[in-house]
Amino acid sequence: MNEIGANRRNLDWTAQDVAQWLGVPLDGLGSMAISGMADIPVAEPTDLVFADDAAHCELAAERGCGAILTTPQSWAAAQKRPPAGILVSNVRASWVDLLERLEADAPFPAGIHPAAVIDPEAQLADDVSIGAFVTVAAGAVLHDGVRVDDGARVGAGCTIGAGTRIFANAVLYPNVRVGRRCRLHACCVIGADGFGYIAGPRGARKIPHVGGVVIGDDVEIGAAACIDRGRTGNTTIGSGCKLDNLVHVAHNVQIGDGTLIAALVGIAGSVRVGRGVVFGGQSGVADQLEIGDGARIAGRGAVVTNVPGGETWSGYPAGRHSNRIREAVALTYLPDLLKRVRRLERILFPGDDGTHRGDAP
Amino acid sequence: MNEIGANRRNLDWTAQDVAQWLGVPLDGLGSMAISGMADIPVAEPTDLVFADDAAHCELAAERGCGAILTTPQSWAAAQKRPPAGILVSNVRASWVDLLERLEADAPFPAGIHPAAVIDPEAQLADDVSIGAFVTVAAGAVLHDGVRVDDGARVGAGCTIGAGTRIFANAVLYPNVRVGRRCRLHACCVIGADGFGYIAGPRGARKIPHVGGVVIGDDVEIGAAACIDRGRTGNTTIGSGCKLDNLVHVAHNVQIGDGTLIAALVGIAGSVRVGRGVVFGGQSGVADQLEIGDGARIAGRGAVVTNVPGGETWSGYPAGRHSNRIREAVALTYLPDLLKRVRRLERILFPGDDGTHRGDAP
Amino acid sequence: MNEIGANRRNLDWTAQDVAQWLGVPLDGLGSMAISGMADIPVAEPTDLVFADDAAHCELAAERGCGAILTTPQSWAAAQKRPPAGILVSNVRASWVDLLERLEADAPFPAGIHPAAVIDPEAQLADDVSIGAFVTVAAGAVLHDGVRVDDGARVGAGCTIGAGTRIFANAVLYPNVRVGRRCRLHACCVIGADGFGYIAGPRGARKIPHVGGVVIGDDVEIGAAACIDRGRTGNTTIGSGCKLDNLVHVAHNVQIGDGTLIAALVGIAGSVRVGRGVVFGGQSGVADQLEIGDGARIAGRGAVVTNVPGGETWSGYPAGRHSNRIREAVALTYLPDLLKRVRRLERILFPGDDGTHRGDAP
Repeated sequence: MNEIGANRRNLDWTAQDVAQWLGVPLDGLGSMAISGMADIPVAEPTDLVFADDAAHCELAAERGCGAILTTPQSWAAAQKRPPAGILVSNVRASWVDLLERLEADAPFPAGIHPAAVIDPEAQLADDVSIGAFVTVAAGAVLHDGVRVDDGARVGAGCTIGAGTRIFANAVLYPNVRVGRRCRLHACCVIGADGFGYIAGPRGARKIPHVGGVVIGDDVEIGAAACIDRGRTGNTTIGSGCKLDNLVHVAHNVQIGDGTLIAALVGIAGSVRVGRGVVFGGQSGVADQLEIGDGARIAGRGAVVTNVPGGETWSGYPAGRHSNRIREAVALTYLPDLLKRVRRLERILFPGDDGTHRGDAP
Repeated sequence: MNEIGANRRNLDWTAQDVAQWLGVPLDGLGSMAISGMADIPVAEPTDLVFADDAAHCELAAERGCGAILTTPQSWAAAQKRPPAGILVSNVRASWVDLLERLEADAPFPAGIHPAAVIDPEAQLADDVSIGAFVTVAAGAVLHDGVRVDDGARVGAGCTIGAGTRIFANAVLYPNVRVGRRCRLHACCVIGADGFGYIAGPRGARKIPHVGGVVIGDDVEIGAAACIDRGRTGNTTIGSGCKLDNLVHVAHNVQIGDGTLIAALVGIAGSVRVGRGVVFGGQSGVADQLEIGDGARIAGRGAVVTNVPGGETWSGYPAGRHSNRIREAVALTYLPDLLKRVRRLERILFPGDDGTHRGDAP
Repeated sequence: MNEIGANRRNLDWTAQDVAQWLGVPLDGLGSMAISGMADIPVAEPTDLVFADDAAHCELAAERGCGAILTTPQSWAAAQKRPPAGILVSNVRASWVDLLERLEADAPFPAGIHPAAVIDPEAQLADDVSIGAFVTVAAGAVLHDGVRVDDGARVGAGCTIGAGTRIFANAVLYPNVRVGRRCRLHACCVIGADGFGYIAGPRGARKIPHVGGVVIGDDVEIGAAACIDRGRTGNTTIGSGCKLDNLVHVAHNVQIGDGTLIAALVGIAGSVRVGRGVVFGGQSGVADQLEIGDGARIAGRGAVVTNVPGGETWSGYPAGRHSNRIREAVALTYLPDLLKRVRRLERILFPGDDGTHRGDAP
């Protein structure tokens, strides 16, 4: 964590530089200085901003912004414009290109901090970067460009793919395999024992967990997220998966490539999640279930049955989102419906006062 | 973490001392020894206890308590009383005054542990206290009386206000600004990347997060709570906010002063929360929404629309609490209601057997 | 964390060895080599597998497994069988016996890493094992066989019972008492301040928390789980309790022996939980409540009233599970029910168009 914060406003870019890097046309003042990047509402005059439409171009001009990233169409349609327009076809993608360049301006030196403890039986590529108070245990293998930040733990027999970064105080238990270009955020815990017990003579008896965790390439694991090891086999997270903060993945879960899991989601033991699934925040899945490819679980959805691929589910218990929405709306009419039915009953069953049925008060 | 635990029962206070510190009258035995503070049910005879009413005064006497903090009214009305009564107008506030004094009995020495790594370009006030295995990166600024416990990480360019304490193994990514007198508990993570991606040619493409986090004064952040950095701007937590354990605050969220957030709450990206809002445990807010000043979200409430200031909301999806309570009660009558409507239909539509409508079994 | 991962497949067991250790009969090829343990679907030919029934015995044979742990009945009934059958009465218990033996093959050396900081006033038994960058504060007492992994913190005045293991980067605040044979996983936080405030002149005023945490024997605490200290008394976790990852236990909660708590559960302040209670994932309990012995709270259940012992509750708000299930089923008929009631009304109240009642669209 030695880089100077990326959002410093000390860039020495110009609008012309940016247009040239992106290979796109520039309209207006190419010499316009760019010292940072920001959203329009909080931009300084020399921050580069972006606009998806003409209205935001105009807003940027009113706010005194100097340079803007937008489409030729939005630029042409705007009544007012900042002095410099960098004209791109895909605003978001070009914005991300520039954020990547901004971030890359803070290179990180390779090397092993003298206050790290590396087991002599660990294998480290030449250009790894290891922070202070890191421990790397026996049999661990760290490939090219791996970076392990201060205080992180790499357990025995772990393998870390090229270009992966493990942030401060993250913990990898033994036998975790992580792919390339992953980002494992601070205080995440990969490979703790699963929550598995059998009935024993004196209460719950622990099932030792001797499996591992296998994580693909380009995976991001949020801060304080926890992925448990398998009992004997592995818990697996497919390539391209992104897990947000405080996500729980239990033992022996299998998650397909490209699945996105928002914060505070819990996935119970041995669940199989397909490819390209999306979990909204605080959703959950009971154990042993299957979630098909491309399914979407809405925020807070509580899944207790298998979910077919491609469907959107929500609710508690979760079902098809369209049904759950209808039911949620219908529920708001229910207090009134009770009265309406009582009224009907008074006509048809006049001698029946309804009390034995426990009418709602 | 060198202090001897605060709840030791080796205080050498007397009832008279306590009355004098609080500037309040004492009735009874001023020489009564006080060696600790406790709730009545678990108190030792020399623990100070407190009572909000006469009944608890009597209970304290029955349990053999020596000294009690209570109101003059409760003391006068009690049939039995402990030997010493310390008589205050606001029992809870005086109890907290004494807890603060008890805690302050364990002073913490300033100084930098020899096994900490402080970047030469960090600026530390003279009286900071830095524990073992702490890292403080370049450009960090620690003001007067800041305390960083063992194994905590202070990233590059962070600023920590006077009197703030960062507990063990907490992680501050680069560019986090923390105000004065804050408490950031163990294993909290401030400033990790937000969960933001755009569609790329090979799945989700990461949006680099180059913003920061700004935390006001007198803020408490619970253990393992996670507050993500902004994309380009900042995530902000207002002064006086209190966040419990395992809370998730996503990128670019803005939280007003004095807001309270209980454990396991998730607040999604770019949500704006007003001042003095209260979130019950495990509640959540979907992205981009606004929660007005003084709103209250009940425990487990799942907010998917804006919440007006001052209102109490609950439910999934969340709505006004009074409505949700009525609906929840009405729902308990629904299974019976289905049968009642079937009975009505048999009268009015005798040839219709109802099966095509899928009556509940 | 120096052990080589337990699930290595370099065991040099034979089927005969295993039968002898378990004291059970073997049928078939006693010399069959066993190099690992696995579930049938992912087993290598020399992995030991297990089967609860004849069908799985047959499946193991088809998959080329060499040795199987099963019951005499399943073995006898199977049409095809692996070369070696180890015949036991309780398959799961024997499987766990063997996993324990496999795990025990990786002994851990006692000793104190030179890069640990142990306060001279801490008391450590001779055979403790302390990892790198650990801190143990003054007054802490570590009994026989305690193991503290890299970067974990043991606060002042903590007591750790014999055979307990504290995993990497876990944090024990001062005055935490942990029993024997416990496992406290990585990044768990025991003893942080409770979330307690009183109204003060300038917003929420912190109540200092000077109590402790008391954890019984044979307790497992999941990764990043958080157990807060009591205000003046203790938060207590009974013997044999198992808490999963990311569980929150607030100040002054009392949990009886043998209770199981799945991931992401939140238990609010001063709740009393009985013995042998089971909490499903993401469930929660509001403050001050009581959960009776042997109660079961289903996953996601949101408890807002006391729960009698022995009952199973679910829902939001939680109630008896059987009722909540009936209500959830009934709710799926509600949109249709609204239409059915409207039809009835058209017969009985033909002049009433229903619009004033806000029929669902």
